[in-house]
Amino acid sequence: MSTTTANKENISEKKKDDKKVDVKKFTLKTPKGTRDFNDKEMAVREKLISTVTKIFKKHGAVTIDTPVFELKEILSGKYGEDSKLIYDLQDQGGELSSLRYDLTVPFARFIAMNGSKYQNIKRYHIAKVYRRDQPAVAKGRMREFYQCDFDIAGVYEPMIPDSEALVVMWEILKEVDIGDFIIKLNNRKILDGMFQVCGVPEEKIRPISSAVDKLDKATWEEVKKEMVTEKGLEEEVADKIGEYVKLKGSKELVDILEKDLNFSSNLKVKEGLSEMRTLLNYLEVMGVLPSVSFDLSLARGLDYYTGVIYEAILVKSSVDTSGVGSVASGGRYDDLVGMFSGGAKIPCVGMSIGLERIFAILLKKTKPESIRATETQVYVCGIADGTLLDRMKICSELWDAGISATFQYKDKVKLGQQFKICERDQIPLAVIIGSGEIEQGVVNLKLQYEGSKQVEVDRKDMVTEIKKLLNIA
Amino acid sequence: MSTTTANKENISEKKKDDKKVDVKKFTLKTPKGTRDFNDKEMAVREKLISTVTKIFKKHGAVTIDTPVFELKEILSGKYGEDSKLIYDLQDQGGELSSLRYDLTVPFARFIAMNGSKYQNIKRYHIAKVYRRDQPAVAKGRMREFYQCDFDIAGVYEPMIPDSEALVVMWEILKEVDIGDFIIKLNNRKILDGMFQVCGVPEEKIRPISSAVDKLDKATWEEVKKEMVTEKGLEEEVADKIGEYVKLKGSKELVDILEKDLNFSSNLKVKEGLSEMRTLLNYLEVMGVLPSVSFDLSLARGLDYYTGVIYEAILVKSSVDTSGVGSVASGGRYDDLVGMFSGGAKIPCVGMSIGLERIFAILLKKTKPESIRATETQVYVCGIADGTLLDRMKICSELWDAGISATFQYKDKVKLGQQFKICERDQIPLAVIIGSGEIEQGVVNLKLQYEGSKQVEVDRKDMVTEIKKLLNIA
Repeated sequence: MSTTTANKENISEKKKDDKKVDVKKFTLKTPKGTRDFNDKEMAVREKLISTVTKIFKKHGAVTIDTPVFELKEILSGKYGEDSKLIYDLQDQGGELSSLRYDLTVPFARFIAMNGSKYQNIKRYHIAKVYRRDQPAVAKGRMREFYQCDFDIAGVYEPMIPDSEALVVMWEILKEVDIGDFIIKLNNRKILDGMFQVCGVPEEKIRPISSAVDKLDKATWEEVKKEMVTEKGLEEEVADKIGEYVKLKGSKELVDILEKDLNFSSNLKVKEGLSEMRTLLNYLEVMGVLPSVSFDLSLARGLDYYTGVIYEAILVKSSVDTSGVGSVASGGRYDDLVGMFSGGAKIPCVGMSIGLERIFAILLKKTKPESIRATETQVYVCGIADGTLLDRMKICSELWDAGISATFQYKDKVKLGQQFKICERDQIPLAVIIGSGEIEQGVVNLKLQYEGSKQVEVDRKDMVTEIKKLLNIA
Repeated sequence: MSTTTANKENISEKKKDDKKVDVKKFTLKTPKGTRDFNDKEMAVREKLISTVTKIFKKHGAVTIDTPVFELKEILSGKYGEDSKLIYDLQDQGGELSSLRYDLTVPFARFIAMNGSKYQNIKRYHIAKVYRRDQPAVAKGRMREFYQCDFDIAGVYEPMIPDSEALVVMWEILKEVDIGDFIIKLNNRKILDGMFQVCGVPEEKIRPISSAVDKLDKATWEEVKKEMVTEKGLEEEVADKIGEYVKLKGSKELVDILEKDLNFSSNLKVKEGLSEMRTLLNYLEVMGVLPSVSFDLSLARGLDYYTGVIYEAILVKSSVDTSGVGSVASGGRYDDLVGMFSGGAKIPCVGMSIGLERIFAILLKKTKPESIRATETQVYVCGIADGTLLDRMKICSELWDAGISATFQYKDKVKLGQQFKICERDQIPLAVIIGSGEIEQGVVNLKLQYEGSKQVEVDRKDMVTEIKKLLNIA
């Protein structure tokens, strides 16, 4: 992000001529942790969003929209200690509001508020959220960023919506083509049961779970140290946990764990393993099992998960993705809507695509000069002065025919300059006219690649011929 | 907007069973002046936005994105007395920021900040803005609403970009099909010159101009009264203004006004009339002149306009559009960027599409039951229990082929129920399987309209046959 301070000299110089100029000195920047996106960056972002949206729609999802800010009380008590990162609106009279921190709580509020109408909904929502976190621009951690959520609410047979959410995640990660990935899978029921089996006291289960959550970045020794030294867990208990969290695999791991009767006789573990068996079976049928790893070390930070949890990470990419972390994640949260609806439980499962992280990787993979910010197909050129009105007329005909076309905003034109614009903006076809052509009722068409020959066509056939050359219906 | 208060009874009842349930009483609503949009409303909004975007792109426009909030000092001093409507973020340490009030000031800030890189840009921006105005839900005036802007920045020959902005406005209003419209045109130079010619004192030009701006809603008598009684204008001067502001027409009005030497000898008027002549000429060439009315009563509220101004209003529609006001508007603002860049002038012309107003009209025109919120093409039905895995497998094949497909999330299914879902969601094609079909390696396809016959096809030909039936490539 560039920061420019208005040039004071210029201002005072200018001031002599024109009293109207505002002499206030501006620091031209966006607020900390926010940024602009220019035309080329937006072209990459829009293509990504359109890819993701297409896949959501392919799975029959609808979209809803909620306001950028919510009543403060709706958000409070949902994000644990991270609540301090919520942006509040100033109290200017009336209700106290805050910028949304994620899209999940507004979604839960929407479902609870609409009573029976949206108790079954498969919805996606791609929109900006706000966190007053310490920005890390290099890592792509901003205070304003997109979230991209897909959630299925409703009472269904176990693991069916969960498996479709995972298939959607898998399809998107395949399609955006940022590298090879695996999706780690676990289940909060198994985790909680595992902590019970290992002897973790009830009140320490959440803190110990959040220590386990660090295993993707830290070694077991570091995590164990945190458990024992910081969180006061007995070393023996930590060592038992250590044996389990190193386990990962696929369907066979479910078998192994079920045979471990000390483990699988725990009721939570039992329920969790049964869910995993069903889920892995469905994933196999839908062809995504090879990309999935049942991983007992996956814990996920958020408090509200109640069942299956998952997280996709890159294992190979053509660009440096170190420090990127997960590129998609989610899980089942059966109790969140109930917090709003006054107890009426609406089970939900969902996932978030890490749009900003994927965008950062795509941008690294793409040469800036290869990005087209416009979709212009035709540039209408004049050979000589005095063709402005005819170029306008031709553009107008092309626009009527649905063809994207532009022309130079001047009457005294030079052909070379216009061709340079074609090249710079990668416009594939030029229409060329001079006074001769206008008189004879013809135009010249030239595809903008090396060796392409200029062809003269009748003015009345122009649109048809252009469509043929550009291969558009 | 419905407002629901969580049922206290339910909560206490529930509390006995489950201590985890949050007993806090929520008022479930969105903040004043904001609202949710449900799936069907979003389908209408997205179609509208996609239509508008397509036309912007057809004219070679790019898009940029700016943050939802800006530094407070960037916004202050740009909106006159309406600055009191700006939403401020609470001071939580760090910079003072405010929610954006429009997209024009952030655009000017973006251009000024990027130095020479974006001195020539044709950009659109469709995004939400925020105003702490008194909401009028019935009129569609909200505190959070979309703006949809198209602007051309850069030094060009007079009236060329202005005419394209008007053509874009015209194409969009044609395409969204909300009724017959006219685009009123005027020029700030003519207005200012007119006030000079009539003898309005310099310091009263803005207040008198904003009185003229009310002529679309008030009679001349009411406006005159405001001028004379409230704003202290001499009655004789007001009467002179009254003679001019009733004038409207097309190219011939320019001729008439130029022949009025008392009027056209004013330097501002002269310049303005010359611009109007050029502009109307360009608009004629591009075929939109019949929809345009040069109207001396058009004044436009915003301070920053410096040249051509315009406003589109509906003159006929199939639904009640009374009180809707303008559905698109804009003008030239040559000095705004200079306020940020420290005097370096970057001329701009632009226009806003009244997306929220058009959306409200489209919603009135559309029967809710005719709106499809999903794009699902195929529903995969089971004749009997035990077909879940096969329905999953078939869906997965269809997804791989890019076909939008869903299935019922249960194993014990009833065909009648599944057909009802097809009907409710307007899904055009059903794939039907039972255990017999699975064994024989076939599926049944049935288009969901009265009298369509079920056809049996080989499982391996399923995708091809479905594409044929649905007419997709």
